[in-house]
Amino acid sequence: MADGRSVASLPAELETRRQEIEDALLAVLPAEGSEPATLVAAMRYSVLAGGKRLRPLLFLAGAESAGPERLQADAIEAAAALELLHTYSLIHDDLPCMDDDALRRGRATCHVVFGEAIALLAGDALQTLGFELLATRPSGEARAARRSDAVARTARAIGVLGMAGGQALDLGATGAEIPAAERAMHLRRIHALKTGRLIRLSLELGALHTGADADRLHGVSRYGSALGLLFQIADDLLDVTQTSETLGKTAGKDSAQEKLTYPSVFGLAGAFLERDLALAAAREAARDLEGDSGLLAGLAMFAAGRDR
Amino acid sequence: MADGRSVASLPAELETRRQEIEDALLAVLPAEGSEPATLVAAMRYSVLAGGKRLRPLLFLAGAESAGPERLQADAIEAAAALELLHTYSLIHDDLPCMDDDALRRGRATCHVVFGEAIALLAGDALQTLGFELLATRPSGEARAARRSDAVARTARAIGVLGMAGGQALDLGATGAEIPAAERAMHLRRIHALKTGRLIRLSLELGALHTGADADRLHGVSRYGSALGLLFQIADDLLDVTQTSETLGKTAGKDSAQEKLTYPSVFGLAGAFLERDLALAAAREAARDLEGDSGLLAGLAMFAAGRDR
Repeated sequence: MADGRSVASLPAELETRRQEIEDALLAVLPAEGSEPATLVAAMRYSVLAGGKRLRPLLFLAGAESAGPERLQADAIEAAAALELLHTYSLIHDDLPCMDDDALRRGRATCHVVFGEAIALLAGDALQTLGFELLATRPSGEARAARRSDAVARTARAIGVLGMAGGQALDLGATGAEIPAAERAMHLRRIHALKTGRLIRLSLELGALHTGADADRLHGVSRYGSALGLLFQIADDLLDVTQTSETLGKTAGKDSAQEKLTYPSVFGLAGAFLERDLALAAAREAARDLEGDSGLLAGLAMFAAGRDR
Repeated sequence: MADGRSVASLPAELETRRQEIEDALLAVLPAEGSEPATLVAAMRYSVLAGGKRLRPLLFLAGAESAGPERLQADAIEAAAALELLHTYSLIHDDLPCMDDDALRRGRATCHVVFGEAIALLAGDALQTLGFELLATRPSGEARAARRSDAVARTARAIGVLGMAGGQALDLGATGAEIPAAERAMHLRRIHALKTGRLIRLSLELGALHTGADADRLHGVSRYGSALGLLFQIADDLLDVTQTSETLGKTAGKDSAQEKLTYPSVFGLAGAFLERDLALAAAREAARDLEGDSGLLAGLAMFAAGRDR
C-alpha cells in the first residue's frame, strides 16, 4: 500500500487540505473515550496514525478538476470516507492470518495493541462507517441519487471483484508456482484490484460529488487508473530500496513472503521503466483535464516518489 | 444468533417466500466457479448453507404489513442484503480470535474449510455486497432517497454503535467480573446491539421499501424491538436446552465461555418468564399493525420456539 512513505513530500498546496481532512476524520469518528470504549479506541488509533491522506486528497482533487459545481461544506467528510475504507483494509491486511505485520505508519499495528478480535471488529466497523458517510454526504433530497451512486460504485470497487478480490488473488499467488509468461499478467491484475480500484474510485467520487458529466468522469477515470498503477509500482520499489525506519512499516517483506511485485517480475531496472511509463500516462491524462500545470500532475510526480 | 434452529418450524405461508429468497441469494452472489475462485467459493459456501432466512423474511413481512405500495420485483434482492450482512457477522464471529467455532448450520465453519484469511475476506466482501444491493434496489431516480436512507440506517445498525459494537461489548463482558446488579443491564445492552438492531432494521427497511410513513414505521420498529429481544432469549435458551445435533451448531458453548445469557443472569425459570414477556410485547405490537391474526404474530410465536 502506498501510505506511510516519507520519501517524497506532499505538494505544498495540499498540506492545508490534508489538515482539513484530519479535522474531518476527528469529526466523523466516535468521540475519544465513548462506548464501546475498546472498539472506539482501536478505530481511532488506526485512523489517526497520520499518513498522507492520499485518497481523500484525490477525492478533493477530482472534485475540483472535473466537477462544475463548488464543493459543498460536507465534501470533506465524504472524502474522509475513503480514508476509513483504506484503513479498514490495512487493519485486516496486517492481521496474523493475512500479512502478519507488526509495524504500520511507524507504530505497532492495531492487533498488536488491541488484540486480534478488536482489530477485526475495528476494520469491520470502519468499512461500515465509510459507507455511512457516503450515504449521507452530500445532504439533501436532490442529491440522493449521487449518494446511492457513490455507495454502489464504492461497493463494486472494494468488494469481491475489487479490493477484497485483489487481496484474495494476492494470497493465492504468494509463494505459488506461476509460469514466467503469466507473472506480469497476474501482477497487474492483483495490483489493479487491490490498490488501483480504490485510488481511481477516490478521484471518480470527487468528480461525481460536484456533478461531473460522463466525459469529465471518463477523463478522471483514465487519470486515476494511471495514478493507481504508478502508486503501486513506486510502493513496490520502496519496499526494496528503503529501510523500515524510512517507510514506517516493515521493509523487504514482499520478497521475504515471495510476493509478486514489479521488481520481482521485471527486475529493478524494468520496474523503474514501468514506473516512468505509468508516470507519463498519468501526466498526459492530467494535462487533458487541467492543462499544462496543475494539482493532478503534481500528484503524479509525488506518487512516483519524485519531489519535483 | 437465531439461525440454524430446527426446533420450531417456519409458518407455512413463509416457506414459498423462503424459496424465493434462496433464488435471490443465488442471483446476487458471484457465479459458481467465477474468479477470484476461492473467495467466491467461500462466500457461496457460507451464504448458501441453508437457514431460515429470517431477516429477509422480516424485511418482506415489514414491507407488506406497513407499506402502502406493492412490492417491486427487486424487493427480494434488497431483502437478501440482510442475509449477506448476517452471514458476514457469523463468519467473523466464528473465527478463532472471536468465538472460535467449528460448526455452524450443521456444517464446518468457513475458516475450517477455506482457512482464516479467506474467511476474513469472505466476511468483508459480504458486508460490501450487502451495501451494494441496498444502494441499487429499488431502482430508479425517484427512489434514490430511499436507497441512500436504507444504506445509512443499515450502517448505523451494524456499525460501532450497533452490531459490531455489541460484539465488542460481548467480548469485554465474557469471563469478566460484572457486579450482580449490573449483569441484567449489560446483557440487555449487548443483545440489543449484537442481534436486536439487525432484526429491527430488517423490518424497518421493508416498511421503508414500500413507502411507509413515520407512524407505520414507528409501529414496525416497536414490533422489531420486541421480536429481536424474543429471538435472543429463545436462542440463549436453546443453547442450554438442546443438543449440538438439533441446533446445527455447538450447544452449551455460552456457559463454557462464561457468556452473559438470559439463563445465566435470570436462571432458567426467569429466562422463560422474560421470553414470555417479550412474546407478549411482540404480539401486541403485531396486533396494532395487522389486527388480530397475521404473519407478524405467527413470526413471534415462531421466534419464541413455539409451534403454534
